Amino acid sequence: MTKGRLEAFSDGVIAIIITIMVLEMKVPHGSTFADLKPLLWVFLSYVLSFVNVGIYWNNHHHMLHAAKHVNGPVLWANLHLLFWLSLMPFATGWMGENHFTPVPTALYGLVLLMSAVAYTILMYALIRLEGRDSLLAKAVGADRKGMVSLLVYLIAVPCAFFMPWLAGALYVVVALVWLVPDRRVERVMPKH
Amino acid sequence: MTKGRLEAFSDGVIAIIITIMVLEMKVPHGSTFADLKPLLWVFLSYVLSFVNVGIYWNNHHHMLHAAKHVNGPVLWANLHLLFWLSLMPFATGWMGENHFTPVPTALYGLVLLMSAVAYTILMYALIRLEGRDSLLAKAVGADRKGMVSLLVYLIAVPCAFFMPWLAGALYVVVALVWLVPDRRVERVMPKH
Amino acid sequence: MTKGRLEAFSDGVIAIIITIMVLEMKVPHGSTFADLKPLLWVFLSYVLSFVNVGIYWNNHHHMLHAAKHVNGPVLWANLHLLFWLSLMPFATGWMGENHFTPVPTALYGLVLLMSAVAYTILMYALIRLEGRDSLLAKAVGADRKGMVSLLVYLIAVPCAFFMPWLAGALYVVVALVWLVPDRRVERVMPKH
Amino acid sequence: MTKGRLEAFSDGVIAIIITIMVLEMKVPHGSTFADLKPLLWVFLSYVLSFVNVGIYWNNHHHMLHAAKHVNGPVLWANLHLLFWLSLMPFATGWMGENHFTPVPTALYGLVLLMSAVAYTILMYALIRLEGRDSLLAKAVGADRKGMVSLLVYLIAVPCAFFMPWLAGALYVVVALVWLVPDRRVERVMPKH
Repeated sequence: MTKGRLEAFSDGVIAIIITIMVLEMKVPHGSTFADLKPLLWVFLSYVLSFVNVGIYWNNHHHMLHAAKHVNGPVLWANLHLLFWLSLMPFATGWMGENHFTPVPTALYGLVLLMSAVAYTILMYALIRLEGRDSLLAKAVGADRKGMVSLLVYLIAVPCAFFMPWLAGALYVVVALVWLVPDRRVERVMPKH
Repeated sequence: MTKGRLEAFSDGVIAIIITIMVLEMKVPHGSTFADLKPLLWVFLSYVLSFVNVGIYWNNHHHMLHAAKHVNGPVLWANLHLLFWLSLMPFATGWMGENHFTPVPTALYGLVLLMSAVAYTILMYALIRLEGRDSLLAKAVGADRKGMVSLLVYLIAVPCAFFMPWLAGALYVVVALVWLVPDRRVERVMPKH
Repeated sequence: MTKGRLEAFSDGVIAIIITIMVLEMKVPHGSTFADLKPLLWVFLSYVLSFVNVGIYWNNHHHMLHAAKHVNGPVLWANLHLLFWLSLMPFATGWMGENHFTPVPTALYGLVLLMSAVAYTILMYALIRLEGRDSLLAKAVGADRKGMVSLLVYLIAVPCAFFMPWLAGALYVVVALVWLVPDRRVERVMPKH
Repeated sequence: MTKGRLEAFSDGVIAIIITIMVLEMKVPHGSTFADLKPLLWVFLSYVLSFVNVGIYWNNHHHMLHAAKHVNGPVLWANLHLLFWLSLMPFATGWMGENHFTPVPTALYGLVLLMSAVAYTILMYALIRLEGRDSLLAKAVGADRKGMVSLLVYLIAVPCAFFMPWLAGALYVVVALVWLVPDRRVERVMPKH
């Protein structure tokens, strides 16, 4: 019951975040291909953010599915994750409108980094509640993918100030790694 | 349970898409009928998009109702469909503000085409999971309506560059065909 | 199950409509009471629309609670209702910004009228499905309140062109009548 | 069932409120740190409002979890709470853009105060329905925290006209007090 409402609220917030990002793509006034061209970078950053938020929804979905209970700290860890994700539309719009220049690209990476940190905190809050021997703890295991993502973001953010294209490439690489759904959880879970 | 959350998330995203489209109808400054007139095309394209998104919600609803399970590929095929639908407000606004000129009308058709492709992919991902003998596979059958829609969109998009009014008419025709709810699924399903 | 998803989708759309209306109250640039003053009429029309949409949610909630099944026509009658409600933010913003001048006040009434018509259609689609002897049919009874509302709106809309203040007053009166929750349904329903 | 739909609708509205507040942080045109600087106060007021709305969601969640039934007055008391919360994005944007000047800071406090009043009304509507001996009534007890918050807001609002920084500090203090989840309810509730 309570878990259901946390999932429903998170679904609502994530659904809105993923959808209002598209509002940053302002309808151009002219009606030719040339009028669409300035929107190319905005579109590309929208695609990247859509995939990233989609990954968070997907993993959140799997993680909560494996969890049995929620408590106060979990509710707040979840709101903390939603806070950083809610900055995604702003960071996406700024990076897209400025064609991946250094500072916006670094800020975008910072939002990705903090979202990953918040997700990790939520994961540990859940494991602490469920116990070391729980289905969830086994499913997560060493969380190598999560740790590598954090590391790559930590490298990408300062990197954005000097080579924003490399930072952008690193963001894409992390997204591609996660596009493969989290087999760790699926492996130990019964087919649903 | 898991299926329920996929439905809830999709409902959320589709509900937001269908509602933020209306934000493209900017409140005019004057307060006479003449001030409303420039909004006529924006309103008509809003009606068309509302009906189209409504059709997707309706069919999505029936298809998921017939399905029993979801897995990783289904989750991503679903997000892929939501991605193309999320471009609907942008395409609607651009076409409406430019009074159905060629390029915006073609882009609108492209978004409809890609949404239909994404829906078809989701359908096959579900059938692959449920099996060839499942209720869903039987309900979908030869999917003649879906195939015809794809074909009409494929014709309408290039057509938009020369005769945008014909492309617009074709979009309306496809919508009218789908307004009749999917009897194929209802036929084999018990009354719910 | 299917009824649940129709309720969830309607909740989503109504929740978004009720919330994006507030976006029409644009944040003023100055920071004094005088800067707030031009927003007074926008605020008043927001309050009126919030109450009206709240009434629809409330009655929708009671009506669906009394219903057992949904079918294709019900799904579309429901989308038709959501379509007219989705025009509320536009009509509210236009009426508020123009301080209840004739045409915007008439348009606002038209949206209220069409929403009431759509609600009535949805009610009959449900009764047709549930049967004349169903709990729902008994709960609705003669629907005197609904009929009176339709009549008042029919008078208020043309009235808005000559005496917009009277039309506004009539909208407020109808809202007040409905603020009392629908006892007809509650009377025959077991306490939930 | 009925309680579930009230929770779902509230979740939807609160999810949208919490997310559209971020739209007040307009994407700047330049791409340097200097371009971000004017957004600092907008960001800080966003954080404060995110935490406040998060607290309301959290407490609403706990309170409804302890409740068994809902009725007409509860539905309207809930809509009344959502109304005041829906003014949060406006108040947040105005206070943030004007760097916590007197009138916007007072208005922000007024929205917080009215939300707290509305929450208290909802609580009493629920207790009246559930009975003095209900789990909910015991869980709430003397509601000292709620009473203190109301008192602090009552002091902070007039205070904002002379020392807006002190009013801002009081808003932060109340938020910090509530960040600790409502142990009163958790204490008497079985682990969920």
